[in-house]
Formats: sequence, structure tokens, C-alpha cells
Amino acid sequence: MFQDVHVMIFVGFGFLMTFLKLYGYGSVGFNMLVAAFVLQWATLMRGFLYMEDNTINLDIKSMLSADFAAAAVLISYGAVLGKTTPVQLVVMAFLEIPFLVVNEWIGTVQFQALDIGGSMFVHVFGAYFGLTVARMLYRPEASDSTKEGANYNSDLFSMIGSVFLWMYWPSFNSALAVGDGRYRAVINTYLSLSACAVVTFAMSSAFDKDGRVNMVHVQNATLAGGVAVGTTADMMIQPWGALLIGIIAGTLSTVGFTVVQPFLARLKFHDTCGVNNLHGMPGLLAGVAGVVASLLKLCELGDRSAAVQAEFQMAALFVTIGIALLGGTITGIILQLPVWGKLQSEELFDDRANWEMPGDEDDCEPQPTPSIITDAE
Amino acid sequence: MFQDVHVMIFVGFGFLMTFLKLYGYGSVGFNMLVAAFVLQWATLMRGFLYMEDNTINLDIKSMLSADFAAAAVLISYGAVLGKTTPVQLVVMAFLEIPFLVVNEWIGTVQFQALDIGGSMFVHVFGAYFGLTVARMLYRPEASDSTKEGANYNSDLFSMIGSVFLWMYWPSFNSALAVGDGRYRAVINTYLSLSACAVVTFAMSSAFDKDGRVNMVHVQNATLAGGVAVGTTADMMIQPWGALLIGIIAGTLSTVGFTVVQPFLARLKFHDTCGVNNLHGMPGLLAGVAGVVASLLKLCELGDRSAAVQAEFQMAALFVTIGIALLGGTITGIILQLPVWGKLQSEELFDDRANWEMPGDEDDCEPQPTPSIITDAE
Amino acid sequence: MFQDVHVMIFVGFGFLMTFLKLYGYGSVGFNMLVAAFVLQWATLMRGFLYMEDNTINLDIKSMLSADFAAAAVLISYGAVLGKTTPVQLVVMAFLEIPFLVVNEWIGTVQFQALDIGGSMFVHVFGAYFGLTVARMLYRPEASDSTKEGANYNSDLFSMIGSVFLWMYWPSFNSALAVGDGRYRAVINTYLSLSACAVVTFAMSSAFDKDGRVNMVHVQNATLAGGVAVGTTADMMIQPWGALLIGIIAGTLSTVGFTVVQPFLARLKFHDTCGVNNLHGMPGLLAGVAGVVASLLKLCELGDRSAAVQAEFQMAALFVTIGIALLGGTITGIILQLPVWGKLQSEELFDDRANWEMPGDEDDCEPQPTPSIITDAE
Repeated sequence: MFQDVHVMIFVGFGFLMTFLKLYGYGSVGFNMLVAAFVLQWATLMRGFLYMEDNTINLDIKSMLSADFAAAAVLISYGAVLGKTTPVQLVVMAFLEIPFLVVNEWIGTVQFQALDIGGSMFVHVFGAYFGLTVARMLYRPEASDSTKEGANYNSDLFSMIGSVFLWMYWPSFNSALAVGDGRYRAVINTYLSLSACAVVTFAMSSAFDKDGRVNMVHVQNATLAGGVAVGTTADMMIQPWGALLIGIIAGTLSTVGFTVVQPFLARLKFHDTCGVNNLHGMPGLLAGVAGVVASLLKLCELGDRSAAVQAEFQMAALFVTIGIALLGGTITGIILQLPVWGKLQSEELFDDRANWEMPGDEDDCEPQPTPSIITDAE
Repeated sequence: MFQDVHVMIFVGFGFLMTFLKLYGYGSVGFNMLVAAFVLQWATLMRGFLYMEDNTINLDIKSMLSADFAAAAVLISYGAVLGKTTPVQLVVMAFLEIPFLVVNEWIGTVQFQALDIGGSMFVHVFGAYFGLTVARMLYRPEASDSTKEGANYNSDLFSMIGSVFLWMYWPSFNSALAVGDGRYRAVINTYLSLSACAVVTFAMSSAFDKDGRVNMVHVQNATLAGGVAVGTTADMMIQPWGALLIGIIAGTLSTVGFTVVQPFLARLKFHDTCGVNNLHGMPGLLAGVAGVVASLLKLCELGDRSAAVQAEFQMAALFVTIGIALLGGTITGIILQLPVWGKLQSEELFDDRANWEMPGDEDDCEPQPTPSIITDAE
Repeated sequence: MFQDVHVMIFVGFGFLMTFLKLYGYGSVGFNMLVAAFVLQWATLMRGFLYMEDNTINLDIKSMLSADFAAAAVLISYGAVLGKTTPVQLVVMAFLEIPFLVVNEWIGTVQFQALDIGGSMFVHVFGAYFGLTVARMLYRPEASDSTKEGANYNSDLFSMIGSVFLWMYWPSFNSALAVGDGRYRAVINTYLSLSACAVVTFAMSSAFDKDGRVNMVHVQNATLAGGVAVGTTADMMIQPWGALLIGIIAGTLSTVGFTVVQPFLARLKFHDTCGVNNLHGMPGLLAGVAGVVASLLKLCELGDRSAAVQAEFQMAALFVTIGIALLGGTITGIILQLPVWGKLQSEELFDDRANWEMPGDEDDCEPQPTPSIITDAE
């Protein structure tokens, strides 16, 4: 299970973001940088918070929790993809982790809220933290850039990420579950994702005037079912409950890309990867499903009443949103300090700002392209 | 094991088919659509057939069986790749599953035929079902299309699929095996694949007048060893038996691509991915190997004599072919109904028929390609 | 664990080498050929050496050892990538395995040296064997080839390999460990890799006059932490020990690419993939770390004193280097025999020498590229 989650972080998130035609190096490269940094930093932060006898425990569970923290930061990265320097990114990761760890501590330890797949504490938190940072760093020229788009190959690279996320999502939602709950988490996530994928194709085609499918939806909205079932995955929601959540999630996410994202853009929330559609709104749906499932007594209640559990689920969702907005605002302010550098307008969504490009050293002597490769392409 | 098979379905089959230079979205995208649809539909169909106490069991084994069913449908998809609308594809999947489930029920429950890796019930069935559908949908212009070909990048994407299939094939052939049989299935498949891969390179080079290797063979024929050992993988066929099967499979498959496929094309069996070479003929070889292994008493016979078991193995193979041809014919007739739509000639093997392309919205204002990217490509 | 290592061999090494813009087929294709060949040949050779009762044992452990042997040969392949015919490659693999097996037998059985992740017996051996072969096959025109470079897509394909290697390295270093040692091997490798990745980005940026990151470093040097901790991974080196090794490894490897590789090239050691930087020097570091850890009594010493164990660790490292140089020299001499063929100068780093290219048959009639695909690219 741990290896599956690890694959999602490095291959899944890394390649999912390669859809930008000029930002492939930055997507998969800085994804690796941020993830490797967060694995250490989150282990340390969580270690301090949950320390016993002045010793930080280092085991598979703490590595898994660090992977979850990395997922949240990478979701936030999705919102600001192509709009920051690498230093700004690392600073963002540095600042996000304390907020994330504290929020998770409030939600799971204080409120005893249930969220087995981290839909609230990872997805909602990461999405709205990132969106808030993106809002703080807003620059009008980002919206006009002709570089913010895909090409045929970059879309296929992105599908590598999408498919790995899709396949391993049942492991993500069940990794921290125990006993029968783990079993349920696998099957419910699998059902929700399957329903969500089929619905996404149908919705995407319905939104196009010629009935064609949109690759952005296939890459992203097919995964919304995994997010939306995350809070309730190990509960007794029944197969039809999981399918229903998947259907709603696919619809919500496709509508998000088609309607909500352009609307948010006008409010200066420029969301490069559409994290609101894949993580934000489906995560909210997951939180609401958690409240409903608590009221219906589909989960372990301990000595609480269903109503009390539902209230704490609701409270955890609101606190998560609140801390994400607060943390994102503070982080956004700090990221604007000149010391971290800032991209020039023409460097937005462009690897050449941060990467040595192949062929740079040959700039002066133009080399002839072998004819067969031109044919081949 | 289940996750490995899942990876084969979504990454393996999905990317293996991306070799078409203009059909990468369709390959990996519709692969996901079909697989997600079949996972649900096959679970339901199998659930009805094997229902106990009016309850459909939903567990890892039923998810694994659904993955096997998805594999069969995706093999059929390989035969018609680029020649159907997405609606036709889903209808094909819808119709194929009942035939597949009934055939498997006859073979495993009624005949007690052994086929641990599904070489007959998945590969032979899927290949000849698909080929028959392709024959029914035959259009001469498909054979002349200049779009039906690879380019340098599409071949590399295809190798992602090929390599993942190659690696995880031991899991496919052993997932349903138990005890020592599982162990044998892993090792026999591993040996057969290794021998097959080496032979494929040698044969491919031998077939070229300049001794060069053909990428199509490497992508496909290297995998034939996994199919060909599928029926006997858990039997006591000995390492040299597995190696022998792999050597024959690699030869058979390479010959298939070089000689048989052009011949079939003249009979109007247009086989886009060459599924007859990778799944059809190696699957027949697996079936014959199963008959021979039964005669040699290399398998669990229960209270049957070796001859009786061999007869039932043979019967299962013939019934599989028969139901595949019948099912494919009926499905082909239904798919020609105008209600499902039909591709125009120029839409064959072309993503633009079904997908919004990146850059569509910018059609009017031609954007300058940044010079360095031209260099880089 | 076995499957993880298998993925590293076929996907990891295969795609890592696809960075050459005109040698993608050869990288991933011949990687598969060599690996499939070595899996069989190494199993046989090791089988003879460790035979009991005239029987060769075939189990998961022997398959794992065969995968380790394949890793060593593929590292050597990295040094000569693009500079050999496929026949030369297979001959090299054929000759390398006996040296490798004997060296490993001396090190582990005679010297009882500890090297759980194979940093000496796999990485150091493979790197210096390959470098020596490359030296023997040296041709000045290889250094001047304009074909020896990456492009945007080939670098992204290479990142697929890099990321899979990075993720599964903890499995590589722990696959042969037992009990608590396995647990330590996973966590130490994970820590070393994380530190190494972050340091690599920093160092890479520091070496560029404009502060940009170099993709070659990200693809390779981020992995050096896994090599460098390989010998001591299961020892009680403490988290800070693992982090320290990772930091040194990332620095060493980046310096290797920037300073050492150009220097070696002037000595006619032309190292296509830079295996000295990723496997050679970090492997030496691992060997030294093993000596230090022995002296500090961080490992199981049995009835030896710490000093004796340290001496045998040192001896194993020197013997490995010696046998690699000797074996590489002999192999290099044999590879120059005309019977294996030889690449023409213009065939260096060029798939067209060995592969049928897509579109070859259409050479005469130039086909119009559909406009949208030109846009899309």
C-alpha cells in the first residue's frame, strides 16, 4: 500500500501536471523537488507534534503520513503551476506544512472527525490553500499567456500521471484503514472511480457542441470519484452509495472545468491545473457525504450520538477551509517578498526560465535535423 | 497481485495501443472508458450467474475477474482500434460481456477445463471476437489510410505499455492460482517471457533484409510468451517446457506480423493492433499446450483420466472459438445500425473525430512557435 | 519487493536511457533484450555455482539475484549506449555475467563482506566494467557527434525511468534483507534519497551561471543517494547517517557530471549516460561507508572483530574494482573482433542503424502532415 501511494505522489502528480506544453520539466522535476523536501519536513513537523518520550517515531505509518502531506502540497502546486520560481515553491511548501499538520491535528485528534482518505485534510486543504496563494500572486498577464496550453505529446505524458492516480487511488483511500474497513475502502473507491470515469466521458461529450471529448476532463474529472468517496470510503455506504458518489463527482468536476473555472478566473483566482475541480469541490462533496453518513449511522460512532459526530465532521470541514484560506493568505504575502525572486511575464509557464535546455550549448551552430526524424514526427 | 493486473489493464493495454501517431488520445482515453465500463458491467453479469442467496458477492476475486473480462474486451478493441465511434465501442463492450461470461462458465464450470491465465477464455476469445467484429465493419479505405502508422514518439509511448505488460504478466497468469501452483505460474511465465523476448529480437532481425529490428515486433511479440504459457502456467511443465513454449510463441507471433497479418488483410480481416499475432495464435498455442499437458498428466486431474481431461481442454478451446465467432458476428451486425453513428473515411485512425484538440480555440490567430522548442524537437 | 525490482530493471533503466533524442528505440528496446537475456544466463551461471545435489534452484530469490545481475549489465550498457551493435551488446552481457558472478561469490561467500543493496557488487562493478569497455571501444568521432543529446520529449521519457527508479529504490536495497534489517533498509534508503534529491537541485542550480537546473542532474544525481546508502542500508547508521550519505552523494554526483565526466572524456573514457557519476563514485562512497560502519560496529559482526570486518569490506571493494577492470578489458578486446560487426561513424547514437523506422515504406510518396497536428506539436 505504501509503495502504491508513493507512486501516486511521484508519478501520478508529477506526470499529471506535464500537460503544459512548455512546462514539462518544471512539472515533473519540481514535483520531485517539492515531494522530496516535504517528505523530510513533514516527518519532522509531525514528529514534533506526536513525539513520545522525546523520540520521533520513524516507521511506515509516518512515511505514509508524510506522503499524504506531500500530496496536499502538490495539489497546491497545481494551482500555482508555472507561476512561481522554484525558491518560491520550496518556501510555499515550508510554510504550508505547519498549517496542514495543525489542521489535521485539530480534525483528527480534537474533533475525532473521520476522513480515512484525507479528502478534507489533504484535498480540500491543499486545493484552497493553493487557490488562495494563486489569488495573492495574481498577475493579469498569466491569463493571456499563449503558453498556458497543451500539445499532443504533453497531453499523453499527462495521461501517464492520470492513469497511475486512477489505478492506485483505492490504495490511497485505504492505506490508513484497518480490518474490514480497509476492504470496504478499496471496493468503494474502485466503484466510485469506475462510475465517475464513465460519467465524465458522457458529460464531457455533452458539453461540446460537436459531441467531442475534452482531454482535460479525462485527465482530471475521472479521478474526482476517488476524492469524493475519500471521507466515507471505509464506512458502510453500500455499493450503490459509492456509485452514486462517483456519478455526482464526475458531473460536478466536469461542470467545474466548464463553468466554475472561467468564473473563478474572472475573480482573479487563476487555477492552472483546475485543482478546484478535481480536489476542491469533490473534497467538499466528500465532507458533506461524511456528514450525511454520520447522520445515517454508517460509521463507527464510539460513545457519540450520530448528530454529534455529524457536527464534528461539519466542524472539521469548516476549520479546514478556514485554516487553508488563512494559511494561503499569509503564505501568499510572504511569497511576494522580493528576496525569493519572481518570474518575468515572459517566463510564465515556460521551462526556459528555470532549466538549462537541451541544445543550449549549440545555439550558435544550427544543426541540421535528420530528415527521417522530421518524417517520424 | 490484483494491483499488478489492474496496472496491466489501464497502463499496459492503454499505452500499448498508443502506437498510432494520430490516435493516442483515443487509445489511452477510450481504453480507460471501456475498462471502467466493463469493470462494472462484468461484475454485474458475473454476479447474476454466480449469485448465492440472491446476493452478488463483491470481493477481490470478483474484481480480478472483472479485470480479466476488461482484458478480453480491450483485446477486441485492439482489432477495431481507430475504426469505431466511442458509442460503438461501448455497445461492443456491452454485447461482448454476456458471450464472454457464458463461454467462461461453460469452459470452467461445465467442462472443468483448466486455463489459469485465461489464454483461452480471455485471449483467444477476445482476439477472435474482435477480429470478427473488424471483419463485419470492414471498409476498404481503412487499408489505404496513411494515418494508420506510428511515429517516433508514439512508438515510445507504446513501449510504456509493452514493458508494463511484460513485467506484470507473471501476476496475470498466477493471480487466480493457489498454493504451489501460484509459485509455478510465476516462474513458468517469467521463463517463457524471457525466452520469447530474446527470440523475438532474433526473428525480427532475420525477417528484415538489412537485419534491423522492427518496433512492432518488440512491442507485441515479446509478450506472446505470456499468452502462450497461460493455460499451463501452474502445471508441472518444467522450466524447459516453459522456455520451449516461449521460443515457439516468439517465433509464431513474429511470423504472424510478417506473413499472416497481410494475408488476413486480403481476406478483409483488418487487424489494427495485430491481436491475432499477440493474442489469437499464441492463445491457440496455449490451448494446444493445455491438451498436451493433460495427456502427459502434468496437471491436477481429479477423478478424470488424462484422455478425458485432454478432450475437455480441446472442447473448451473449440467452444471458445465458436462463441467468439458467433458473438462477434452478431455484435458486428448490431454495430452497423445507424443509431450508433459511424466514422467518416477521413476520420479513421484520427483523434480529431472524437476529441477536442489542444489549440482548437486558437485556430484563427496563428501563434508563433518559440524557437527553442523547435530546436528541442 | 521482487516486482518492484523488476519494474526498476525494465521501466527504470529502460526509460532512464531514452534521453538520447535519436536512440529511444535502442534504449528501451535493447534494454529489454539485454535484461531478458541476462535473466536466463545469470540464473544458469549462478545456478552452476550454487548448485546443490546437481539441482539448480529456481525460486524468487534466484529470480531476484538474476535481476541484480541484469542491473549491473544495464549499468555497463549505459556507458556504451549508442556505440555498439546489438550483437556486441549481447556478447558483452554474455561475458560480463561470469565475472560478475565470480566477484560476487568472492565478496559474499569468501570475504563475508556486507553489501545488502549491491552497491559494490552491482553498481561499482557494472560502472567500471562498462567504463573499461567504453575505453577499449573508444572512437574520437563519438565525442563530436551532434546526435549525442536530448530533446524536450526524450528528456521527459527519461524522467519516467528516473522517477520509477527513485520510488522503488528502497525495495532494491531491502529486497535481500531480513527482519529488522529490511525495515531499516527501507527507511534509510528513503531518507538518503530524499536528502540527495533536494541537494541535487541546489547543486545543479549553483553550477549554472544563471542559476538554472540541469535536467541531466535531476534524472541521475537524485538517484545517487540510493546507490551510496546501498552497502550500509540495513545497518544501524541512524537517520542522520542516512541523510548525511544522501547529501554527500548528491553533491558528489553533481560534481561528477560537471567536472569529472569532461575530464574522463579527455582520457578517452566516453561515458554516454554518465554511469561513473550515478553508479561509480556513489558506489565507491557506499563501499567506504561500509568500511566506516564496520569500524563503528554498526553491523552484525558475528565472531569477527570490527577491524577484520572493515578489512574484508575494503578488500571486497578493491577486488570488485580489479575484476571489473580486468573483465572490461578482456571483454573490450573480444568485442573488437570483426565478427560482431561495428557501427559506422554516422550510425553512432542513431536508431536508424538498427531499427526499421516508422514511415520507411512511405519514403517515396511524401504524405502531407495534417495541419492540426503541426499546431499541436
